[in-house]
Amino acid sequence: MGVAMEPVIIVNLKTYSEASGEGALSIAKAAESVAKETGRRIIVAPPISDLALVCSSVSIPVFSQHVDNVKIGSTTGFVPPEGAKAAGASGTLINHSEHRLVMADIEQLVKRCESLGLTTVLCSNNIAVSRALAAINPAFVAIEPPELIGGDISVTDANPEIVSVAVAVIREISPEIGILTGAGVKNGRDVAMALELGTDGVLLASGVAKAKDPRAVLLDLASGIPG
Amino acid sequence: MGVAMEPVIIVNLKTYSEASGEGALSIAKAAESVAKETGRRIIVAPPISDLALVCSSVSIPVFSQHVDNVKIGSTTGFVPPEGAKAAGASGTLINHSEHRLVMADIEQLVKRCESLGLTTVLCSNNIAVSRALAAINPAFVAIEPPELIGGDISVTDANPEIVSVAVAVIREISPEIGILTGAGVKNGRDVAMALELGTDGVLLASGVAKAKDPRAVLLDLASGIPG
Amino acid sequence: MGVAMEPVIIVNLKTYSEASGEGALSIAKAAESVAKETGRRIIVAPPISDLALVCSSVSIPVFSQHVDNVKIGSTTGFVPPEGAKAAGASGTLINHSEHRLVMADIEQLVKRCESLGLTTVLCSNNIAVSRALAAINPAFVAIEPPELIGGDISVTDANPEIVSVAVAVIREISPEIGILTGAGVKNGRDVAMALELGTDGVLLASGVAKAKDPRAVLLDLASGIPG
Amino acid sequence: MGVAMEPVIIVNLKTYSEASGEGALSIAKAAESVAKETGRRIIVAPPISDLALVCSSVSIPVFSQHVDNVKIGSTTGFVPPEGAKAAGASGTLINHSEHRLVMADIEQLVKRCESLGLTTVLCSNNIAVSRALAAINPAFVAIEPPELIGGDISVTDANPEIVSVAVAVIREISPEIGILTGAGVKNGRDVAMALELGTDGVLLASGVAKAKDPRAVLLDLASGIPG
Repeated sequence: MGVAMEPVIIVNLKTYSEASGEGALSIAKAAESVAKETGRRIIVAPPISDLALVCSSVSIPVFSQHVDNVKIGSTTGFVPPEGAKAAGASGTLINHSEHRLVMADIEQLVKRCESLGLTTVLCSNNIAVSRALAAINPAFVAIEPPELIGGDISVTDANPEIVSVAVAVIREISPEIGILTGAGVKNGRDVAMALELGTDGVLLASGVAKAKDPRAVLLDLASGIPG
Repeated sequence: MGVAMEPVIIVNLKTYSEASGEGALSIAKAAESVAKETGRRIIVAPPISDLALVCSSVSIPVFSQHVDNVKIGSTTGFVPPEGAKAAGASGTLINHSEHRLVMADIEQLVKRCESLGLTTVLCSNNIAVSRALAAINPAFVAIEPPELIGGDISVTDANPEIVSVAVAVIREISPEIGILTGAGVKNGRDVAMALELGTDGVLLASGVAKAKDPRAVLLDLASGIPG
Repeated sequence: MGVAMEPVIIVNLKTYSEASGEGALSIAKAAESVAKETGRRIIVAPPISDLALVCSSVSIPVFSQHVDNVKIGSTTGFVPPEGAKAAGASGTLINHSEHRLVMADIEQLVKRCESLGLTTVLCSNNIAVSRALAAINPAFVAIEPPELIGGDISVTDANPEIVSVAVAVIREISPEIGILTGAGVKNGRDVAMALELGTDGVLLASGVAKAKDPRAVLLDLASGIPG
Repeated sequence: MGVAMEPVIIVNLKTYSEASGEGALSIAKAAESVAKETGRRIIVAPPISDLALVCSSVSIPVFSQHVDNVKIGSTTGFVPPEGAKAAGASGTLINHSEHRLVMADIEQLVKRCESLGLTTVLCSNNIAVSRALAAINPAFVAIEPPELIGGDISVTDANPEIVSVAVAVIREISPEIGILTGAGVKNGRDVAMALELGTDGVLLASGVAKAKDPRAVLLDLASGIPG
């Protein structure tokens, strides 16, 4: 784990209909209540069209799902880092597997976000790419071991070496970087395992966004953080 | 002008820093107040990260600056039409010159928006493209005569035939479509000229978004609508 | 059918391994031999990396599979119309369903190609898009009725109205434009049906590109053209 | 310099009209003749539409300007690594500043090319990105110090530390990787300086592609390699 880094749970609401508009607000408020109740660090990334509304409605940190490396001003329908900041975000996902960016833009976005005080989470699809992304010094790299993506296999059941090898490779490049387990996380046991394997937290989506009772799932996830 | 269509003023706030976050809210409220005071139809398109917040704060129609032809659910950092709708939008710009889309996506987005009750404004860069976009039957086509874009030339001073020829060509394809003058509009005189030339309103950006006193500019624009 | 237009068979070799490098040359030569033998108009579109070599090796027209709306000069790894022309192409597909372009670029590419003497074939995925693309006056529109794409259903067996309605809609916009049946063509009977339905020819791919004996398939296709 | 690596001069012909079609062939033959005469390692990257023709016409190595991370088969107007190989290429530029790729595709393309025996040259815009790209182990990284791009400043005149710092950073990640000076190279003196600064060769474009006498320029460049 990163030096003295507090474990974090980041919930990406994607564009699920249950988690858009009113749904985004409702899940963000559930996350806020669980964060207060448990004292754990929980962050929500709502649909970008709901970003400012969610930011203005909860006291926990809210992240943008994406930022675009466009200049502010004469650009339409994009979210430059300054726009995410103005909306109230305190950080952002970058290069999510569903919204890939070219390498030169990733690097510039990390710099732009840093100068604005926005926390950066670079998403990566495998160990080689994680190593490359760590080389440009974001706050976090979220690793999505291909064996764990989009399925029922949880990080607890899979071969735990997948994650621990990734951690070793990334830390060799950038010793103090935050690392997130970005796939295979469903419940508190998975969160505990993610931390045991040396990552600093988790990034998950459908497990919360599509849950019948998001608050209950969030409570269970938070229970996986020891201490 | 389209049959019995009420003239409209659409304000695109783009990603101007003055018109993001608090600025977006403030301009949207000015537009609401001018719309109430003058009885004119004014629509605001805020930065997409501010969309839901602006929608929840004003009673005039709010448009998205853009929508993406992605499915709802497992897509991150995009705005599907359903997401714009959930945020409270009542319409959207599509294919803005700063956010071009492939033809197949434009056509599908018009259909998706229509089925959701979202008003569509397709942006076009010249007469040939306006003719093509009119052929897929959006609610509006916004034409940006290249002679008028991004400069100090107003539609009032330029050769008015630029706009009237475009109108004739578009109406030949689709007689009742709404047409907007999408460039060269700075003040009430330009709005009046845009309507005289046969368009149903205007789409403008920096003239309001970067104005020292957006309310005063909006009042002047509204004064260009006769009757 | 277009006024006095000679029926045409266009073969898109895509990037099939059997139809790349030596394979592209071999199929192009088979097409040349069938064109000579039957007197029919056959055009080949090889992988773009084989374009100049195929152009320099056969006497029938060769088309590019794609062109990019980039300027000539400081652009790397693209094919501007001028590059396709310099390679020896006499025309090009534009906006193939596997290589979509934004509307503004499609319109500019048609103009650039026209001024270079390159024949343009705009590919379209449905009737509404066909209508829109016809509005910018390319030499040909290739229609791919969704019911016929990528399957075993041939245009002969499917509801023939799919094609004839598309033809009527396109010709209403642009009376003398060439129209190609772009899906559901496997053999000479399909070619004959495509012409009967009012199109001016066919655009096909795997039926030739992956054939054990491309020359035999081409002979059969050519036999579908009457007279 | 990389362990026992022979210095290399790579000439990117981009899409310059002088270097397309017949022009591409003529410059490639000049490069071949200079390579034979001087014994130096010279590689040409012609417009992709001329790739197979140039490959079939000269005996020096020919590189593709770009490859696309698409599957072979049902893809139109792209160059998968297998297509570049079938055309006769022995390597390829990847992620040129004029043709950026998303990170996940860069990583997969390096693997695909490697398995086909294609030499990979990853282009990078600054030191941070060079470090990241080196982390995925291509054959070469070409660095383009922003201070040297597209101007009259040659690497000889500029602050030489720009290049030597980049070399140190890259070699820390990947000790035996080839490194190319990708900007600021006009003549033999610049080539000599590029080698002195610890790179293994140069990547240049307009200096040769737009030269009145490409052969003379190539002879001068080759003279910069000592020994």
